[in-house]
Amino acid sequence: VSRFREEIGEQPAVAARLLLTAAPAVEAIASRLREARPTSFVIAARGSSDHAATYAKYLFGSRNRALVALAAPSLFTHYDRPPRLEGACVIGISQSGASPDVIAVIEAAGSQGCLTVAITNEAESRLAQAADLVVALEAGPERSVPASKTYTASLLAMALISQAIDPDADFAAALARVPRALGAALQLDEELDHLAPALLGPRAVVIGRGFNLSTAEEVALKLTETSYVLARAWSVADFEHGPIAVVDAGFPVLLVGSAGPVASDLQGIAERLAGYSCRVVGLFDGTAGPLEAEATVRLNSGLPEELTPLTLAVLGQLLAHRVALALKIDPDRPRALNKVTRTW
Amino acid sequence: VSRFREEIGEQPAVAARLLLTAAPAVEAIASRLREARPTSFVIAARGSSDHAATYAKYLFGSRNRALVALAAPSLFTHYDRPPRLEGACVIGISQSGASPDVIAVIEAAGSQGCLTVAITNEAESRLAQAADLVVALEAGPERSVPASKTYTASLLAMALISQAIDPDADFAAALARVPRALGAALQLDEELDHLAPALLGPRAVVIGRGFNLSTAEEVALKLTETSYVLARAWSVADFEHGPIAVVDAGFPVLLVGSAGPVASDLQGIAERLAGYSCRVVGLFDGTAGPLEAEATVRLNSGLPEELTPLTLAVLGQLLAHRVALALKIDPDRPRALNKVTRTW
Repeated sequence: VSRFREEIGEQPAVAARLLLTAAPAVEAIASRLREARPTSFVIAARGSSDHAATYAKYLFGSRNRALVALAAPSLFTHYDRPPRLEGACVIGISQSGASPDVIAVIEAAGSQGCLTVAITNEAESRLAQAADLVVALEAGPERSVPASKTYTASLLAMALISQAIDPDADFAAALARVPRALGAALQLDEELDHLAPALLGPRAVVIGRGFNLSTAEEVALKLTETSYVLARAWSVADFEHGPIAVVDAGFPVLLVGSAGPVASDLQGIAERLAGYSCRVVGLFDGTAGPLEAEATVRLNSGLPEELTPLTLAVLGQLLAHRVALALKIDPDRPRALNKVTRTW
Repeated sequence: VSRFREEIGEQPAVAARLLLTAAPAVEAIASRLREARPTSFVIAARGSSDHAATYAKYLFGSRNRALVALAAPSLFTHYDRPPRLEGACVIGISQSGASPDVIAVIEAAGSQGCLTVAITNEAESRLAQAADLVVALEAGPERSVPASKTYTASLLAMALISQAIDPDADFAAALARVPRALGAALQLDEELDHLAPALLGPRAVVIGRGFNLSTAEEVALKLTETSYVLARAWSVADFEHGPIAVVDAGFPVLLVGSAGPVASDLQGIAERLAGYSCRVVGLFDGTAGPLEAEATVRLNSGLPEELTPLTLAVLGQLLAHRVALALKIDPDRPRALNKVTRTW
């Protein structure tokens, strides 16, 4: 078994641990936010963590009615012309806590007087030291190059912060069910082999919307970095604005979603793509309507849509792993990569 | 000659006209911004216009030190849970002014009391009517499905707004040189055939950074929608964080950039990709150092980096057009597309 697959399997335990350990940190963040009353959140991140930032844009937007901006790190580093951030709470997400560009954003935000938060797996890292407050992911060492457990832990940290700002009993109960739901996702590992034949490359499109746009981005990245399938994610809306021209008969398209307000958009695009004889496969959590697809793996975790990016990320990791195995690629040794990428 | 190519050729005239006609609108915007003193800008857009929003994130960030957030339209439409936007100036960009999701964001912002701005080619559109202030692009009818002249006109509108907020004599002089620079870009049409052989599909990666990350996104979209090459853009930094695993010998990578603080990053990645025997081709405006590439088309417009996304977009459009011709695809009739996409 690869390290990647081992770490995928640790996610129920990582989530359960984070639910226990993060409470003081997220309560401290909520308390400081009640004083500071920020006008917006600015999030700095790279790679998978950037998709966690996209998730927060939807989660903080809908649950907390908060505006979220994703930072452009090169304004802080290469150009040395950072925007004014007064009134914003600035969050840096980095598994290693060693990304110089994420650290640069947090340091600039601190010197502008912003409340700063680090979300990292390394509680002693430079990022953690630079921030006012830290959520330590406590996920244990992540040795596989493609991130898995630190990704879902980052999403869960965001959900816990959102809940601490605007507590809600139903959401609290749903959060408590996350570890079991991730366990249920793991049970579908072998079923994902039904989706793999469509995704053996050299290219694929991954489509999501709303909360699971972040999941589509993350699954596309996982396929790209573990299986060398050039996978490109789009929201249904952006896809229909132009890129849909790329598909023809046999073109592989993976749809990722849950029940909820955007489910009918996914159904609509599935029908349209079936009309072009594309190879449509689906990854779902929830009982949305039937979908025209060659193969679908469906979990019914019972989680609200807001938390399905966690279960669906696990399914996407497992899928990328199965595709890599089918292609005889070692997922622990992606070409040309080291675990910590120190971009500036 | 296709409509797409005709409209590409109109860009010097469109830019010259916009420089003349937009002054009252952008002065009015700057004047209202001086009263409203927004804490941030929120931009709603789809497709190519979304890349104009990404450009504004860098331009307003560096020139005006303003924070820019890209709106998540589904929060306003499907989820009906828009974030609080108080204190933000909200800009909608839509060629047709008929995108329901962009209109929904502007209407919600207006009802929250925000200053709202429409940037559109249709001065009588619903988007224009919904906004407090309008920059009419005056680009003439854009009949080709892939956007060209309205894209560069949107960038120029953003640059004029930025200049009206923080006037600067050098930038004013550079803006006046834009039409001639776009004309110089058009002169390189045939030279772009040197780049086309590497980009005939089925996939490609396009890399930029900083100001020209938006250009990389736009060129990737143009290749995807006119030539059916699945092209995926990344910033150098995000690419090195994982997706670089996708490349191997012969993999096509297009680099897009100018002189300036991020030029050395592009040189670095070019060397690394050459080490993997990728097919690296380059599209540049400015005299950065030499680059390890199979073929490079280089313009020396003399524009500052902040305005090279305009010239490079023209080169990218021409390139997508040459690739489509080489593949015997009619760029005026992309598969499965209509000009106005009414996503909600």
